Amino acid sequence: MKYRILLILLWLGVLVFSLAPRSALLGGVDTHDRDRASIEAVLNAQQTAWNRGDVDAFVEGYWHSPELTFAGTSGIVRGWDGVLTRYKKTYADRDAMGQLQFSGLEFRFPGPDAALVLGHWHLARAQGDIGGVFSLVWQRFPEGWRIMHDHTSAVAEAK
Amino acid sequence: MKYRILLILLWLGVLVFSLAPRSALLGGVDTHDRDRASIEAVLNAQQTAWNRGDVDAFVEGYWHSPELTFAGTSGIVRGWDGVLTRYKKTYADRDAMGQLQFSGLEFRFPGPDAALVLGHWHLARAQGDIGGVFSLVWQRFPEGWRIMHDHTSAVAEAK
Repeated sequence: MKYRILLILLWLGVLVFSLAPRSALLGGVDTHDRDRASIEAVLNAQQTAWNRGDVDAFVEGYWHSPELTFAGTSGIVRGWDGVLTRYKKTYADRDAMGQLQFSGLEFRFPGPDAALVLGHWHLARAQGDIGGVFSLVWQRFPEGWRIMHDHTSAVAEAK
Repeated sequence: MKYRILLILLWLGVLVFSLAPRSALLGGVDTHDRDRASIEAVLNAQQTAWNRGDVDAFVEGYWHSPELTFAGTSGIVRGWDGVLTRYKKTYADRDAMGQLQFSGLEFRFPGPDAALVLGHWHLARAQGDIGGVFSLVWQRFPEGWRIMHDHTSAVAEAK
């Protein structure tokens, strides 16, 4: 009889686990705080890499896949190699690269393993500052959060 | 004794349900086929609304929320009202609106209730065609799939 009560309790436990939203059980807000911190760490590493002229390290923040996409005024660039090539072509030397600063980051989590990050980018350069806004779609991979899609625009009054 | 076996079987059933990925249980690929069709229906309705000059009906495809965002060369526009105002200002009359055509839609589903849709837009106009690319982040709401974030760029050679 005791055994049956134990089984019923176990069953109820599993039932609650199966019906409750997974995010709530896995920490809810706290989980996203951690996700946010992980994504910010990737963006900080990108900024640091850029500012020492290391484009190869900068693109490590992107999903290392042919399915990676990058949208902007030149249309859609495809694949990690394509994105790397685009950066090296658009920013041929350190003068063109300048000093990168991200700001105004906004985080949303449309799924447990997906994030949307909006923000502003600014390049301080002797040849003239440029800047604009970006929308980054992130996915959680075994190796961590990576950008799976980037849509970047230049904005006339660089912010 | 029979009752106990029944309980164990029930428990095993719930266990499997709780551990299996939800998308697999809810239809997997088929579910996304349906999602894709639902999103395409919203985009088709937008195109039809635009092409009869009805901006108010066009913006029905967007999440009716102050949290809606729209990024582009003018920075980040916020809220459903903000997006509506921007469209009415940028496309003041039917000549400016022209005939809208979406093409080359690509779907990804970073979460069970989230979609990323890339595509091309083209406006055929007497005053000159324009076009470009967009990245739409969609969320499934009780009322259906709606755009929660839009990043749109003009591309020099309109496609």
